[in-house]
Amino acid sequence: MATPLDFLDFVDTNKDRFIQRLAQAVEIPSVSGDPAHRHDVFRMASFLESQLKQYGVETKLVDLGTHTMEGESLKLPPAVLGRIGDDKSKKTILIYGHFDVQPAQLSDGWDFPPFQLTRDEKTGRLYGRGSSDDKGPVLGWVNVLDAHHTLKKPLPVNIRFCFEGMEETGSEGLDEFILAEVKKGKDSWFDGVDAVCISDNYWLNTRTPALTYGLRGISYYKVVVSGPARDLHSGVFGRMVHEPMTDLIALMSKLVDPKGNILIPGVDEMVPPPDEEERKLYRNLDYTLEDVEVSAGAKITLSDDKASILMGRMRSPSLSLHGIEGAFYGAGGKTVIPAKVAGKFSIRLVPPQTPGNVDPLVIKYLQDEFAKLGSKNTINVENMHGGKPWVEDYKHWSYEAAHRATEAVYNQAPDYTREGGSIPVTLTFAEALGVNVLLLPMGRGDDGAHSTNEKLDTSNFIQGTKLLGSYLYEVGAGKKA
Amino acid sequence: MATPLDFLDFVDTNKDRFIQRLAQAVEIPSVSGDPAHRHDVFRMASFLESQLKQYGVETKLVDLGTHTMEGESLKLPPAVLGRIGDDKSKKTILIYGHFDVQPAQLSDGWDFPPFQLTRDEKTGRLYGRGSSDDKGPVLGWVNVLDAHHTLKKPLPVNIRFCFEGMEETGSEGLDEFILAEVKKGKDSWFDGVDAVCISDNYWLNTRTPALTYGLRGISYYKVVVSGPARDLHSGVFGRMVHEPMTDLIALMSKLVDPKGNILIPGVDEMVPPPDEEERKLYRNLDYTLEDVEVSAGAKITLSDDKASILMGRMRSPSLSLHGIEGAFYGAGGKTVIPAKVAGKFSIRLVPPQTPGNVDPLVIKYLQDEFAKLGSKNTINVENMHGGKPWVEDYKHWSYEAAHRATEAVYNQAPDYTREGGSIPVTLTFAEALGVNVLLLPMGRGDDGAHSTNEKLDTSNFIQGTKLLGSYLYEVGAGKKA
Ligand SMILES: [Zn+2]
Ligand SMILES: [Zn+2]
Ligand SMILES: [Zn+2]
Ligand SMILES: [Zn+2]
Repeated sequence: MATPLDFLDFVDTNKDRFIQRLAQAVEIPSVSGDPAHRHDVFRMASFLESQLKQYGVETKLVDLGTHTMEGESLKLPPAVLGRIGDDKSKKTILIYGHFDVQPAQLSDGWDFPPFQLTRDEKTGRLYGRGSSDDKGPVLGWVNVLDAHHTLKKPLPVNIRFCFEGMEETGSEGLDEFILAEVKKGKDSWFDGVDAVCISDNYWLNTRTPALTYGLRGISYYKVVVSGPARDLHSGVFGRMVHEPMTDLIALMSKLVDPKGNILIPGVDEMVPPPDEEERKLYRNLDYTLEDVEVSAGAKITLSDDKASILMGRMRSPSLSLHGIEGAFYGAGGKTVIPAKVAGKFSIRLVPPQTPGNVDPLVIKYLQDEFAKLGSKNTINVENMHGGKPWVEDYKHWSYEAAHRATEAVYNQAPDYTREGGSIPVTLTFAEALGVNVLLLPMGRGDDGAHSTNEKLDTSNFIQGTKLLGSYLYEVGAGKKA
Repeated sequence: MATPLDFLDFVDTNKDRFIQRLAQAVEIPSVSGDPAHRHDVFRMASFLESQLKQYGVETKLVDLGTHTMEGESLKLPPAVLGRIGDDKSKKTILIYGHFDVQPAQLSDGWDFPPFQLTRDEKTGRLYGRGSSDDKGPVLGWVNVLDAHHTLKKPLPVNIRFCFEGMEETGSEGLDEFILAEVKKGKDSWFDGVDAVCISDNYWLNTRTPALTYGLRGISYYKVVVSGPARDLHSGVFGRMVHEPMTDLIALMSKLVDPKGNILIPGVDEMVPPPDEEERKLYRNLDYTLEDVEVSAGAKITLSDDKASILMGRMRSPSLSLHGIEGAFYGAGGKTVIPAKVAGKFSIRLVPPQTPGNVDPLVIKYLQDEFAKLGSKNTINVENMHGGKPWVEDYKHWSYEAAHRATEAVYNQAPDYTREGGSIPVTLTFAEALGVNVLLLPMGRGDDGAHSTNEKLDTSNFIQGTKLLGSYLYEVGAGKKA
């Protein structure tokens, strides 16, 4: 089904208004990982709900209960559900997105205030935390609703929405809700869903749109070493006591080598090596070493072989050391022996790895290595959150519809990619609903999600809105099973 | 010379007023290492100057110029000089102290607001940043002046004061000033000084007053590993790029082992081992393993041998890992690959070590070890500040005076100790003025300088004030050379 021209025109004509709406969303610092911003995540839920309502969507805020963060009991942000269309002759698409964001502070090195949308007129870039991850894509769907409501056009499919506010912090509460809801059968909010579409990742590069059929899982760890009852003066106590930082750094140095190899016995070994055919898949993707270098901003690839680099991201586990809580982190030179330090690291997982089979290896290894240190300090290893990896059938009609929509909007065929990041709910939907899940990215590979100076290109926001709408038309053109 | 009773009585009678003055000083967060608090260091200089003036001291604020901190050009806090007494028949004592403090935040784990003096009526402890390091001792001298001014008693010696506001951050600018001043000869502020007395360290334990005749030096390092142009998402870039944190943690793990041995070739080896006689000195000090355990708040001593532990602090170098700037340090689980991380560590030095002979070993070692990693990231090693170690002749008349004063006030002989910390100016005074320097501590070994819940016991503040005054009387009783 060709996408109606009046919809496409509407998107072009309303560009500035759409950007204005994105600016409003970015101004709400809905950082789910910081208790001080929890009320902003709630504000963002209300903002999103009112946008949906305005365009004729029936909405519901779902209370997901409470959780504990930094020793504080906190209300979880609600899931924002939406429903529009109940035509039995049409397909039903469930759309997921998230309205929370990663932490960001100007002092992290941003060139712009992170919670204010800065529009660079020359490049067309829209800078701001959440611009690309994931407020831009979520508002892309809202733009599609806006267009159809304003033009009084019926949508080509029935839509169900499920937006969450804890994606960046382990999606707490959402799985339980989805599983409980699915159990209701006919009365479930998700009843009748034919496929799921998620726009929460990125193109592989800055040129070629992508459809994504795989995601790595994640297991996030905290290894805490405790010693003295309080921070000590290194002049007074240096070389008298076991220092927690010394022990922690020793442990963290034993997790991954500078080439990216994971040193925890059994973890890398779980993943079967690729055969020649699989290597070829990666060789054929529109990708160069330069793409990594441009998006990372430096010539720091682990290998000079494009296929190895892509496999490192898409079909290999990876271990990153994120930082240390409790140590000195400021500028200047504080001469402290920190009393209690928590190393943070995570492992990205690929099939057949799961938090369930990886966590015991990690925990045992750290405990064994700590025992070898002969320290009188104490250790505690904790899995903070986790999610299994996911790989989908990319020959499904939903992928075919997205393929056609991409060709129509961008005049080129999409790359078929697996993604290095995690969107844990993807697997939950796939398993609980038993339907196909499609990842249909809006942003580019250099958007800098989770990084300083996160941005979304105006063209990706506008063409991306067209893509999301066109995808619905292509799905609508297919026969209802 | 017996210390006059009216002075001792005055100190007891004015206890609450003295504590009130200490509270005023603690309320000024004069953190020299934080540009945001620089104006508070200036405020503290004014506060101190007005206190001195009030009691008849001729004062002078010395502009020490500017320096660069966190890329910002900042005015250095002034040195506060004071002069009282010009009687050629009396000895002249130069008193040094510092009015800046270490950083402190409630969120570091303090049980009390750090910049407010909290008086625990039950234990007599006075909690607050700077209470013991070094506002308490500095105000101890002010208390002595207060008593003599109010009682209209002449002081037994001429006094020169030199208080600085950058001690916690490398004493920038002070050495240059002292050396330039000394060159003025007869016109120097320090002309005629017979000995220097510094009250800026602690007893070895909580029972026995101490005289301190040695200090470790320090060399503070920053090793910066830079890679990507900005922070990256570990899902997108994990196992594609060389991660700066992986390289930095590898380097930091090669500096010191969990037993406290320094792994940089040549550093530990520089220090000759103790002979049996020296071991005995340490065995005889009033000190037990339990003292370390109580002041550290945990059973984490590196050895079960008291002499080894004491030598670790007093006559061995030590290397402490303080933290990492630029990595994730918050609570929660941010999945970031930090773009640029700076590991902070320092080495405490003992004779014959100096920053001059140790720095090249450290820098070369880190560069060599980094080269072995085979990383495409870049490294930069920087010495942030440093100071040579110092050991003094403890049979000098100034030490003898302090010994007698200690016996008079505390009814016991002092421990003769070397201290693990650094007060770089000690050596500058010793070398530039060519006179004896005495360290006469006011606080106890468990005061927690540089730590959370820093405190000074009321009795140490009050008896310490008597000790400082009595020391001046004992010096005054000696013949002017
Ligand atoms: Zn996202
Ligand atoms: Zn994200
Ligand atoms: Zn001090
Ligand atoms: Zn200090």
